[in-house]
Amino acid sequence: MIRRTLLACAAALLATPAAADQLIENVDGVRIDEDGRIDRFTALLIDDGGRVQAVYDRDDERPRDVDYLLDGEGQVMLPGMIDAHLHVMGLGLAQLTLDLSDTNSLDEALAKIRQFAADNPARPWILGRGWNQEKWGLGRFPTAAELDSAVSDRPVWLQRVDGHAAWGNTRALEAAQITEATRDPAGGRVERLPGSRVPSGVFVDAAEELVQRVVPAPRPAERDLAFQRAQEVLHSMGVTAAADMGTTIEDWQTFRRAGDSGRLTLRIMSYATSADTMELIAGARPTPWLYDDKLKLNGVKLYLDGALGSRGAWLKQPYADDPGNTGLPLMSQAQLRNILVRASNGEFQVAVHAIGTAANADALSAVHEIADSFPGDRRWRIEHAQIVDPADIPLFGEHGIIASMQPVHQTSDRTMAEARLGPDRLDGAYAWRSIAATGAPLAFGSDAPVESPDPFAGLAAAFTRTDAAGQPFGGWRPEETVNREEALAAYTKDAAYAGFADGRFGRLVVGERADFLLVDRDPLLATPEELRKTRVLQTWIGGRPVYRAE
Amino acid sequence: MIRRTLLACAAALLATPAAADQLIENVDGVRIDEDGRIDRFTALLIDDGGRVQAVYDRDDERPRDVDYLLDGEGQVMLPGMIDAHLHVMGLGLAQLTLDLSDTNSLDEALAKIRQFAADNPARPWILGRGWNQEKWGLGRFPTAAELDSAVSDRPVWLQRVDGHAAWGNTRALEAAQITEATRDPAGGRVERLPGSRVPSGVFVDAAEELVQRVVPAPRPAERDLAFQRAQEVLHSMGVTAAADMGTTIEDWQTFRRAGDSGRLTLRIMSYATSADTMELIAGARPTPWLYDDKLKLNGVKLYLDGALGSRGAWLKQPYADDPGNTGLPLMSQAQLRNILVRASNGEFQVAVHAIGTAANADALSAVHEIADSFPGDRRWRIEHAQIVDPADIPLFGEHGIIASMQPVHQTSDRTMAEARLGPDRLDGAYAWRSIAATGAPLAFGSDAPVESPDPFAGLAAAFTRTDAAGQPFGGWRPEETVNREEALAAYTKDAAYAGFADGRFGRLVVGERADFLLVDRDPLLATPEELRKTRVLQTWIGGRPVYRAE
Repeated sequence: MIRRTLLACAAALLATPAAADQLIENVDGVRIDEDGRIDRFTALLIDDGGRVQAVYDRDDERPRDVDYLLDGEGQVMLPGMIDAHLHVMGLGLAQLTLDLSDTNSLDEALAKIRQFAADNPARPWILGRGWNQEKWGLGRFPTAAELDSAVSDRPVWLQRVDGHAAWGNTRALEAAQITEATRDPAGGRVERLPGSRVPSGVFVDAAEELVQRVVPAPRPAERDLAFQRAQEVLHSMGVTAAADMGTTIEDWQTFRRAGDSGRLTLRIMSYATSADTMELIAGARPTPWLYDDKLKLNGVKLYLDGALGSRGAWLKQPYADDPGNTGLPLMSQAQLRNILVRASNGEFQVAVHAIGTAANADALSAVHEIADSFPGDRRWRIEHAQIVDPADIPLFGEHGIIASMQPVHQTSDRTMAEARLGPDRLDGAYAWRSIAATGAPLAFGSDAPVESPDPFAGLAAAFTRTDAAGQPFGGWRPEETVNREEALAAYTKDAAYAGFADGRFGRLVVGERADFLLVDRDPLLATPEELRKTRVLQTWIGGRPVYRAE
Repeated sequence: MIRRTLLACAAALLATPAAADQLIENVDGVRIDEDGRIDRFTALLIDDGGRVQAVYDRDDERPRDVDYLLDGEGQVMLPGMIDAHLHVMGLGLAQLTLDLSDTNSLDEALAKIRQFAADNPARPWILGRGWNQEKWGLGRFPTAAELDSAVSDRPVWLQRVDGHAAWGNTRALEAAQITEATRDPAGGRVERLPGSRVPSGVFVDAAEELVQRVVPAPRPAERDLAFQRAQEVLHSMGVTAAADMGTTIEDWQTFRRAGDSGRLTLRIMSYATSADTMELIAGARPTPWLYDDKLKLNGVKLYLDGALGSRGAWLKQPYADDPGNTGLPLMSQAQLRNILVRASNGEFQVAVHAIGTAANADALSAVHEIADSFPGDRRWRIEHAQIVDPADIPLFGEHGIIASMQPVHQTSDRTMAEARLGPDRLDGAYAWRSIAATGAPLAFGSDAPVESPDPFAGLAAAFTRTDAAGQPFGGWRPEETVNREEALAAYTKDAAYAGFADGRFGRLVVGERADFLLVDRDPLLATPEELRKTRVLQTWIGGRPVYRAE
């Protein structure tokens, strides 16, 4: 028996034209429509499930009856930005550490350290970064004793601005059992007090590890707090979804705790830090979308080589500034192919970190070799794809391999890349347009916390190839820019596609989740300089506000 | 604006007396009512959320309008049985291994092994248990060559019925690199072919580990399958909820995969295998109830001592059959108290495995020492509480410490317990009534897969203290029986209370989840012998059928 009353009600509801919840009216809307083209609109209707129910132009008739009406006051509405490559917990944990990069003297730094310790009484270690004794005009490294004068009740461990040295207090040195007998490790130096063997408190390069290894892993409560901070930072910058590259089991559990307790707002496309972790998390197949399209483990992130700056990127030819060194692969050809096959057997997606020409060639070849054995919708990803031999670029298009690239890396790295490669080997460097021209999807991201997660800086870099100071004039190898529309797509719908999220979010089309921003300027019209100053006024995810500017 | 149509519908629905979904009519119902007393009823109304909406006596007026009507045909309806102590994945993985305990000859065993391998072509190792060369009339151990004749394409590894020996084929020995040069480990013996050093294929006691260490951990797909089998077995026996004692991160992820994909039917109250695993899973606090009250991590399970059979239980006085040996604690007093405090700081529940008199005394003392520092609803648990010094029993009541006990262990262990303790030290052995008399809650379980998870066998043992054969006549120390109503409560509402599930399931009272059984006899009326033959006809969880007898 079916209750007649309920049937009658259902019929009544279906007959009501306005089954919608929220109308955001009077916006200058920009979205990517069903055909992938830029579409302008003036109002958005959101259903009570938080999905886009309708998009209106100025003259379209509005529904007569809605639960909530927001006047957008003519502000620009954009789809939520999707960062295709960052490290969520790395970003969050960085928010919990002390930043000394704005200090101008040792005394100022010590005062800031003292205050931070007082503000964080429960934290067992005080961790930080950003000090620079040159900027302080100190003329020498600081000492453990000086740090003790600020904090002596707990270990303190602070990285230099460049990460190539770190400074500890006496408690930190004791925890690491550092004594006069401690020797310098290969590739590192323990600084000593003048005229003695007594460690001064500063550890250079490989010597940092002598103390770093005893720094305790974050406690669960710290992880939860770090994750909330990461969400806050991302939402304040207009990021509503992100691919987390290298999810550990601890990271995953943190995401799930947030989801289980209703505190998960960021949409996360997760790539496990290893094949074992991938299977520990997901089992034999990728997870379903969890928490209303907020979390999904898609597959695994692999490291095929290192970075260009440290000459760890694996090149076909030696470094121009280090002849005889080509960098090294971090996995053998067999290992890479084995994991590709293992993951693909389980329908998992594989994202391969490849920076140098040899690494990119090997990643592309590996996909080429096995692609026929794994038909279907695989969406192979290469992360960074920074320096690709032009001869190899067509393979991106041939197999629809997603190039997951970070526009700001190009502007940060350009002089270093010129030094490492020399002027004649830059044709496939940060080659956004050349790769896109093969028909391969481009997905853009930030690599935060390595760079700021600000997507508007990324958009500006993407269509100019100039940095925040407008340098170099006219852009670095400007033939590799993409246009504004392509850049916006790479930060929205294509980043969603890269994470198997198309149809769920990324475009503000009917049926997708209503993830959007209100911002104070139009990214298709603003100068690059103006665009970098974009102020995010509101960030909404799934039809709910998650950030409002003060 | 609120839509008028919806309001009108809500009002119409509220005015309709029958907002219910399912009526189970014509049952001989037994439940534990709001006051903890046995209550008889004849019909159950379930709302569309799967909760009990009403319970009716014969003469109560029924709702006129329901979605679904089931005629119980006069069968006995019981609350779903809750097992307060078992190992879900251990039970499930045991279902995937070959059981040779019913074989009567080597040839019969080899045929069964051959068939099992053929039925499981994807399984990389064939694992099994239960062989007994004495029962086979073989007069010697079987050999690897004999096993090779059944399966030679993969390793086979089979435990003897008592677990004190295991038998491998040549592939298994090769995988473990067993050769003539392999020496007998301390406490173990590698069987050799007559007149030679060549290992024969059987490994006794500690030598089992030589091969066991190379048996691969189950793959995720196997874990998922094992979990489904565990659920099937439990539901077929009438178990609807269980406390999982010693959840690993792999176990937890398996439960979550089932929950995420809608395959989780068993309600699981989880106790992590270590404090670190507890925090990895849950973070700083216990998880919320997940998947509509199907899964929650409550806290941690600790091992304070071993078992009586192997003389690992920690006793105040030496074993009667091993003078000078008192067993050993597996944790120091400081370790136990540190973990109790760490867990309690996070509002986690602690379940301490304690078998022997000294272990129980230490667990009780530890709670006694810290109980004042952690007020509130703590529900300290002692698992097994098998042999307790009568002088220590009052502490259960003083702190409301839950005694989580397994009735069938008493009937299985009684002759062994008599041997280990001697006739004069049995006063606090399996002392259900004495512990309950202090006012402490009793929660009953099976310790599956150590014993069968059949709760009706447990109920029968609980009020008789006789085994399946009715031995010993009159019961072993029958003054420690509980009555049928108490036994039923310990397998339902009190097991729920022990897992912080009271108010959610366990009693079939209004508002709780509709978890119930239809069985073919009445546990309050059947003879013990009949009760052990109870046939579960249907098992329902959350208002949905999860098992029907064929």
